[in-house]
Amino acid sequence: MADNKKMVEQITSMDVDFAKWYTDIVKKADLIDYSSVKGCMIIRPYGYAIWELMQSILDRRFKELGHENIYMPMFIPESLLNKEKDHVKGFAPEVAWVTHGGEEKLSERLCVRPTSETLFCEHYANIIRSWRDLPKLYNQWCSVVRWEKTTRPFLRSREFLWQEGHTMHATAEEAENETLTMLGVYADFHENDLAIPVIKGRKTESDKFAGAVATYAIEALMHDGKALQAGTSHFFGDGFARAFGIQYADRENKLVYPFQTSWGVTTRMIGGIIMTHGDDSGLVLPPAVAPIQLVIIPVAQHKPGVLEKAREIEAVLRGAGIRVKLDDSDNSAGWKFSEYEMKGVPVRLELGPRDIENGQCVLVTRHNREKTPVSIEGIEKTVPVFLAKVRDGLYERALANREARTYDCTTTDEIISALADHGDGFVRAMWCGDEECEDKVKELTGVGSRCIPLDQEKISDVCVCCGKPAKHMVYWGKAY
Amino acid sequence: MADNKKMVEQITSMDVDFAKWYTDIVKKADLIDYSSVKGCMIIRPYGYAIWELMQSILDRRFKELGHENIYMPMFIPESLLNKEKDHVKGFAPEVAWVTHGGEEKLSERLCVRPTSETLFCEHYANIIRSWRDLPKLYNQWCSVVRWEKTTRPFLRSREFLWQEGHTMHATAEEAENETLTMLGVYADFHENDLAIPVIKGRKTESDKFAGAVATYAIEALMHDGKALQAGTSHFFGDGFARAFGIQYADRENKLVYPFQTSWGVTTRMIGGIIMTHGDDSGLVLPPAVAPIQLVIIPVAQHKPGVLEKAREIEAVLRGAGIRVKLDDSDNSAGWKFSEYEMKGVPVRLELGPRDIENGQCVLVTRHNREKTPVSIEGIEKTVPVFLAKVRDGLYERALANREARTYDCTTTDEIISALADHGDGFVRAMWCGDEECEDKVKELTGVGSRCIPLDQEKISDVCVCCGKPAKHMVYWGKAY
Repeated sequence: MADNKKMVEQITSMDVDFAKWYTDIVKKADLIDYSSVKGCMIIRPYGYAIWELMQSILDRRFKELGHENIYMPMFIPESLLNKEKDHVKGFAPEVAWVTHGGEEKLSERLCVRPTSETLFCEHYANIIRSWRDLPKLYNQWCSVVRWEKTTRPFLRSREFLWQEGHTMHATAEEAENETLTMLGVYADFHENDLAIPVIKGRKTESDKFAGAVATYAIEALMHDGKALQAGTSHFFGDGFARAFGIQYADRENKLVYPFQTSWGVTTRMIGGIIMTHGDDSGLVLPPAVAPIQLVIIPVAQHKPGVLEKAREIEAVLRGAGIRVKLDDSDNSAGWKFSEYEMKGVPVRLELGPRDIENGQCVLVTRHNREKTPVSIEGIEKTVPVFLAKVRDGLYERALANREARTYDCTTTDEIISALADHGDGFVRAMWCGDEECEDKVKELTGVGSRCIPLDQEKISDVCVCCGKPAKHMVYWGKAY
Repeated sequence: MADNKKMVEQITSMDVDFAKWYTDIVKKADLIDYSSVKGCMIIRPYGYAIWELMQSILDRRFKELGHENIYMPMFIPESLLNKEKDHVKGFAPEVAWVTHGGEEKLSERLCVRPTSETLFCEHYANIIRSWRDLPKLYNQWCSVVRWEKTTRPFLRSREFLWQEGHTMHATAEEAENETLTMLGVYADFHENDLAIPVIKGRKTESDKFAGAVATYAIEALMHDGKALQAGTSHFFGDGFARAFGIQYADRENKLVYPFQTSWGVTTRMIGGIIMTHGDDSGLVLPPAVAPIQLVIIPVAQHKPGVLEKAREIEAVLRGAGIRVKLDDSDNSAGWKFSEYEMKGVPVRLELGPRDIENGQCVLVTRHNREKTPVSIEGIEKTVPVFLAKVRDGLYERALANREARTYDCTTTDEIISALADHGDGFVRAMWCGDEECEDKVKELTGVGSRCIPLDQEKISDVCVCCGKPAKHMVYWGKAY
């Protein structure tokens, strides 16, 4: 236990300095390393394995809904980026420009894609001719670059990994349905697989994606009461189609413009997991994306029969499709406890000579450290139950945190005192729809609009700011 | 059949113009599209699905051998690229340079990675301390950029997708073993999964990777008699480790340098498939990487019971893990035959009312168009046999082509007349080991050294060029 204590002391407590606690975890849990490439990160094997699990779950869901993967060039010629006015205004200030190929100066600058709407539109203009070609449901897994000034691992970095779905539809209605369907996929993935409760909502006009008619997002509340935009889904109308001359012959053989969506989630989700579930002993991973779901730690492993039994259990669990690791290294059991707590392994299985005699072992769930002796017989059926318990426990705890930190307010003074009394969190308050009021709320209280939730509730009749009749209930908060 | 004929005529015959035939196929089989980004390609869903299948097979093999995936930044600062002298000399002339982030000029240029040795070395210098940290067996799936002057889809493009393995070992022997093990994985993947016979060999000094001690490659012979380097594996010795200051404490606690490898295969493999197996009707895909392994084409599908039976068979085959597609569109059967021949689907299943009456259907194997009536009963066991037959048939045909086009020669005159009489192919001839002779053979005959095969045979005692005692038997050829 001395070892354990030493380990725990290595990271800053989240209550002392949440930001420092966060960066301690990304380093100590071996998720990332820094390099001489400023603002970019190295995603280490343990961090990348989490991303691979996220990819495999999402990719399967996308494909079940009929989406196909594709790969676009990583460069966008400046003239192509310039084709849609709002889009270029939004992205040009933060792109990386390639100006030379080898020794030669390029005749036209290329930016490294910050997002690929323009490339997809150029391609769609080539391949969409008739209503028979629709819908086009494409997705791409790749890295993108945005030249951010201040960066933080996973949350905001100059290069990040993501998927970007880009779809084209015959009607606005179909495209709007797609936008909301994919928002639903993201919400479901967060709640069921990542155990992160989210609010589904629409962004206000001032917060829309550059070039979109409507931007939807899922918003999660982190442990410290700040909000994280965890995924977005955009409806473009036919704006890009008009800018790029994408037309198709409809069933009456009339040339018309199709309607478009795009949607994406990124490696930022790993940051969301850390800040939702982590604690002062390190990372806590939801089982669905844990590279190691259960670690077996033999106690007194030099005693006859202990390692043999541990290997037997390992084989049984692996055979049942559980991602299991046996740590039979010569480190102390205490050191191992700390190490796998830091790495957020959802369940630990302890096994000593006495346990074996009794035909049992001890399961310890990471998030609440509950120890439960269970029978070795049938362990492959017991462990999935415990993994489900971890997921449920994480979700309930995160939901309880969000509920405790959600404040319904009817005036800006109420907002100010709620935040002062209870700390950062989601504020729910009514809004008239004017950008002026949106700005003023932020100025007065420090919280900006996060989203207009799809599930509307009435907090009062009038705008929290101007007192005029309210149009929407809005979630407000400080954001990462 | 009129439809069929029309379709076939759409592509140039390979015997008329092999290069044109190749580009016809990549377009008509929906593998790629061009964009306004010069020298880069859009990999369309059908082409990308082939790549995903390649990735999933290789990724599993890499992991079985203990490799872990990681993600490095896509940028390399100029000073980092400059650290290993030979390496920068090889790559600097063909990299894309980022000079601006948003409006700002960068204080140091960044190149878009052409390969990531330098980034991995910087990281290894950070994380390797002790012999306990070795080996490090890392791999990365990503895109890289090389500013090529002349480009061809899959074979040579400015951006391409690949995997790059980078490993660090305690001893030179272990690293050399890794180099050859991974070469073996590539060879095995080509022969068993892609049905492409390959020669495993070592590159001559003049043909080595920039910064390597030894470069190994697998070389395949395309249908037209030109060679394709299909995968490479490099042994670096401790050269990069010295340049980057990577040292570890060995078991005697002495600081020493580790030994390094890297190895990679790329989307070029798709080009290899096209040029090895394709014919004048289009692509022919080896079943292991075919997005559609079997297409069901109902004949007279408006007749009662035909579509129902087709759907039943589809469900049975899908349940057996076969990638199956039923085309029940209203296109003619002839059009469908051509379409899926163009796309290289290994097996076609034809099903008409008469077949159903007899409890059978017809399987047609793409590579030789053999038609075999088989019982519908047990079709899920019959189809895998036919898929295996396609793989074997493709492999044997490719091997026969290579054998027919492999010429053993003892003089440069013999090389010249062999090529003139039989067309391009592999020349096997002895070599003294001098670069001068290597250059002279190329100058006189047009074929360069492809590799020094691991399986050496003696063609004669003396160098094909200078007549001095020979050191190696070498494969020579014209290369893509």
